[in-house]
Amino acid sequence: MSQIAAPLAKLIEQFERLPGIGRKTAQRLAFHVLSMPKGQAIGFANAIIEAREKIHRCKKCQNLTDKELCPICANPSRDTKVICVVESAQDVVALERTREYNGLYHVLEGVISPLDGIGPDQLTIKELMQRLSSGEVQELIMATNPTVEGEATASYISRLVKPMNIKVTRLAYGIPVGGNLEYADEVTLSRALEGRNEIK
Amino acid sequence: MSQIAAPLAKLIEQFERLPGIGRKTAQRLAFHVLSMPKGQAIGFANAIIEAREKIHRCKKCQNLTDKELCPICANPSRDTKVICVVESAQDVVALERTREYNGLYHVLEGVISPLDGIGPDQLTIKELMQRLSSGEVQELIMATNPTVEGEATASYISRLVKPMNIKVTRLAYGIPVGGNLEYADEVTLSRALEGRNEIK
Repeated sequence: MSQIAAPLAKLIEQFERLPGIGRKTAQRLAFHVLSMPKGQAIGFANAIIEAREKIHRCKKCQNLTDKELCPICANPSRDTKVICVVESAQDVVALERTREYNGLYHVLEGVISPLDGIGPDQLTIKELMQRLSSGEVQELIMATNPTVEGEATASYISRLVKPMNIKVTRLAYGIPVGGNLEYADEVTLSRALEGRNEIK
Repeated sequence: MSQIAAPLAKLIEQFERLPGIGRKTAQRLAFHVLSMPKGQAIGFANAIIEAREKIHRCKKCQNLTDKELCPICANPSRDTKVICVVESAQDVVALERTREYNGLYHVLEGVISPLDGIGPDQLTIKELMQRLSSGEVQELIMATNPTVEGEATASYISRLVKPMNIKVTRLAYGIPVGGNLEYADEVTLSRALEGRNEIK
């Protein structure tokens, strides 16, 4: 490494810390940054600083935003009677891409995971309960990931919510569209059988 | 996209401009930067600015450096009688990783490519000729990539250098180590046959 100039080595190291970026990719990205016009490289650096400084949690749903409310909570045409509970702000982006959902969200900022020392108090469950206490919400869609922790978190929350007379639903499990029965794992297949619908 | 806060969208866009980074990866990286401790994110931004501002071309070999000479040219234990000609500073890093080469380098900053409007004048061939005129260099290793442009550039330079009574060599072509004959393309295989060595 002593053959690489220090500021370049430092930049490579920074890229290497990003998830899914290995040594070689980090090197390629760092060299690319050096080959950019100067203004463009500084624009990149500023975008990092600006995003890190301006972006914070939405007061209402804990989604990421640079305003007081996120663009979804601030949108008057969204259905305030439905809340979709997700693990992270990235899941909001994934669900919004479907253009099928018009309700609101609630970002938990994680899942209950005793092994990692994460209990319900570290998540935004308290904030969710407060939102539900207004009585406006009629349905809560649990959209945590289909992992052990995601399932446990969903059932923990649904137990809390049940007495409030709010309908709690869960995303459907099944074969991914475009997938192939042959390659589906047993658990997915049995869930797909369980959740089968009548063809009308 | 209007569902994503502007500074976040801008950061995603910046990541997306990097080579080999698609929409989804850019999104993952941007969310990761937001989840970093603030100091770490600012450290990342500063590394970009610092590298872009301090790194420039080595006066002698055109490699990247933050000093007047790059670490290789500045190293008194390197063999100044051999120069390895490469296309880019990244190739220097790749060759240095082998720990086999103890000579100097010369970075061309590209290859001759008439289709892209790049002629010999846009490369650092003039600087190379100047280095060779001192008479100290005994061997020039052409290590441009085995592409049409890389080959053409190598033979262009070797024609220029031949009259100077300097030995010009080329990296060996052949089957990659750990590779498989079955999967090697015909050109590589015929080059490997051509360049075969006697087993001693």
